[in-house]
Amino acid sequence: MEPRYLDWAATAPPYADILEQATMHAATIFGNPSSQHRAGAAARELLEAARADLATVIGTIPGRVLFTSGGTESDTIVALSTMTTATPKSIVISAIEHAALYEQARVLKGLGTAVVLVKPDRDGFIDPAAVAAAIRPDTALVAVMAVNNETGAIQPIKAIVDAVRQAAAQCRRQPFIHCDAVQALGKIPVDVEAWGVDGAAFSAHKLGGPRGCGALYLRGPIAPLSRGGGQESGMRPGTQNTPGAWAFARAAMRAASTFDETVGRARRLESLLIDGIASIPGARVVPDGRRPGDTRYSPYIVSVAFPGLGGETMQRLLDEAGIAVSTGAACSGSKKERRVLDAMGVAPALSFASIRVSTGRSTTDEDIKAFLEAARAAYARYGL
Amino acid sequence: MEPRYLDWAATAPPYADILEQATMHAATIFGNPSSQHRAGAAARELLEAARADLATVIGTIPGRVLFTSGGTESDTIVALSTMTTATPKSIVISAIEHAALYEQARVLKGLGTAVVLVKPDRDGFIDPAAVAAAIRPDTALVAVMAVNNETGAIQPIKAIVDAVRQAAAQCRRQPFIHCDAVQALGKIPVDVEAWGVDGAAFSAHKLGGPRGCGALYLRGPIAPLSRGGGQESGMRPGTQNTPGAWAFARAAMRAASTFDETVGRARRLESLLIDGIASIPGARVVPDGRRPGDTRYSPYIVSVAFPGLGGETMQRLLDEAGIAVSTGAACSGSKKERRVLDAMGVAPALSFASIRVSTGRSTTDEDIKAFLEAARAAYARYGL
Repeated sequence: MEPRYLDWAATAPPYADILEQATMHAATIFGNPSSQHRAGAAARELLEAARADLATVIGTIPGRVLFTSGGTESDTIVALSTMTTATPKSIVISAIEHAALYEQARVLKGLGTAVVLVKPDRDGFIDPAAVAAAIRPDTALVAVMAVNNETGAIQPIKAIVDAVRQAAAQCRRQPFIHCDAVQALGKIPVDVEAWGVDGAAFSAHKLGGPRGCGALYLRGPIAPLSRGGGQESGMRPGTQNTPGAWAFARAAMRAASTFDETVGRARRLESLLIDGIASIPGARVVPDGRRPGDTRYSPYIVSVAFPGLGGETMQRLLDEAGIAVSTGAACSGSKKERRVLDAMGVAPALSFASIRVSTGRSTTDEDIKAFLEAARAAYARYGL
Repeated sequence: MEPRYLDWAATAPPYADILEQATMHAATIFGNPSSQHRAGAAARELLEAARADLATVIGTIPGRVLFTSGGTESDTIVALSTMTTATPKSIVISAIEHAALYEQARVLKGLGTAVVLVKPDRDGFIDPAAVAAAIRPDTALVAVMAVNNETGAIQPIKAIVDAVRQAAAQCRRQPFIHCDAVQALGKIPVDVEAWGVDGAAFSAHKLGGPRGCGALYLRGPIAPLSRGGGQESGMRPGTQNTPGAWAFARAAMRAASTFDETVGRARRLESLLIDGIASIPGARVVPDGRRPGDTRYSPYIVSVAFPGLGGETMQRLLDEAGIAVSTGAACSGSKKERRVLDAMGVAPALSFASIRVSTGRSTTDEDIKAFLEAARAAYARYGL
């Protein structure tokens, strides 16, 4: 029985050829990019080429792209930079942010920062007006993600930015507007300059790049809390992962060049999945209102619920059938909470019965059909 | 002309076979270790095996080893954790710490933490009594590195720990004792439990492992400032770099298994280098008192000075001759400062004329001889 992987939102199988090439680079262009000799210069050249490529993919100039160790660190650099600025202050984040921002905000709250949570509507979307209404004269940071990692809901980033800028027009201090775009890159169109954000976080491994690599778009310099050797314009200390950055940029370019084809297929798989769920008595898509082809959602992420059967149980039953899905985010997998669905007002009976199905570039119709068959069988046997 | 790399303290050429194997693991064991399905379990297994191996190498148990993105992040996790504890507080660090701690301490100072710098003696060593004398009732953190990255001076960590524990015996709050062991692992004997430290930082790429990978030894849990998905016992958020961790542990084991042979060779190269410098009129080893075979220094790092010829100039001249060395730390390469040598009381005329020669597992006698020849020629031509 071939394992069927439907947990691409947790991590994507890497582009093997890109990783192999990166390994060759690691062995030959091994200098420290901060070194002044030729071995350092060669590494610097590779790093800057990667920066230029990634900048093109996200719609900006190389000078606004920093390499980090991952999406979480990119978010953290922004969140912690609020600690170096004037106090008192508040930050405004959506209630459905990834733990990288949500848990970080909890820590900041414990240290004296006011944290305003903006709830999504029942379909999982953040209302720009609601974000704008939360802005105060002391708002240092606003953070709303581009694509929610549990529901696939695409947030109206540009409209949020516009609303926030308007609301803060009279404030002496302009809030920094950040967007966690980890589930967006390679999946939905990303154009940070068009969005108008001040910062955006990206992760390599979510789109087929290497682990431990991320990027941070910064429209201008900030005052970071973490300092060290001055790398990455002083914004992110530590010897750069040259081959990792190269592989990240290459994977992002690969994803961009195959974008239309991949998204088209993802939409077809999404329809197959949502229609299939509708054919299983009692099973539901979460949120209820999501229909096949609804472009308000990333086609790569669909939450479904089997009321009466706990999500963990269904996840385990599917795993035994060789099908990998998750319950919510991988990194909160062990917690007994459904924070995102709760915030949307999904009833606990439904949210605790939910699982996340996420697809990627090599997911096939057969994977979805096998999932539907196994889920139908498990639900018939162990459901209410 | 074959390039000769004598900048191993900046970064080491990786063990190519280990990186290749890691790339295979990346492609096949690609699950997110936080995922609950079998793909996640396989990744978890690889990660935990790596943790156990690395724990053995540094002399502790797996539960006390966390994987991070590098030495800088390992240092930063510890330094920033002081921000989550009671105020006011002070921290005590040596004046020769790596920028990862030194620059971070400057930021903390700007935010209200008192920072006490302990200077080294003229040979580059930190006196345990001087560290003990700096301890106050509000000392939250003490940090002294294991091996200085510019001089190779091996600090008396165990004696420093003993002195600090004794000095703080009557304090209500015990300081956290941290050791940046980035230049130690694989180069000098490392035994964190025998040292008695509370934390220690390690980097993979300095010993032939992959970029973007580090580890943090923690004797017990701390309250980290950065939070997120709860990975690494809640101490370091972000999807773990499974293949990177595996490659790091494998490289550390390789270095450990070849330790005696490699150190023996490094001592021979050190003698060749120091004796060779003595034979160049005017050239000097820094500090002056360092002799071949002096076990107070790591044999892998030697600072030498060519008075009257700026270090940057000599570095560039050597680079043109195909020999890579550095001026001080790579990551402060662009700064016009010689902080470490200054702290030792080395005269500016000498410190600004200094370069760092650092060797590694594949450095040959011929590399050292070529360096000496090129340095002698450059100094004769461009020196005073």
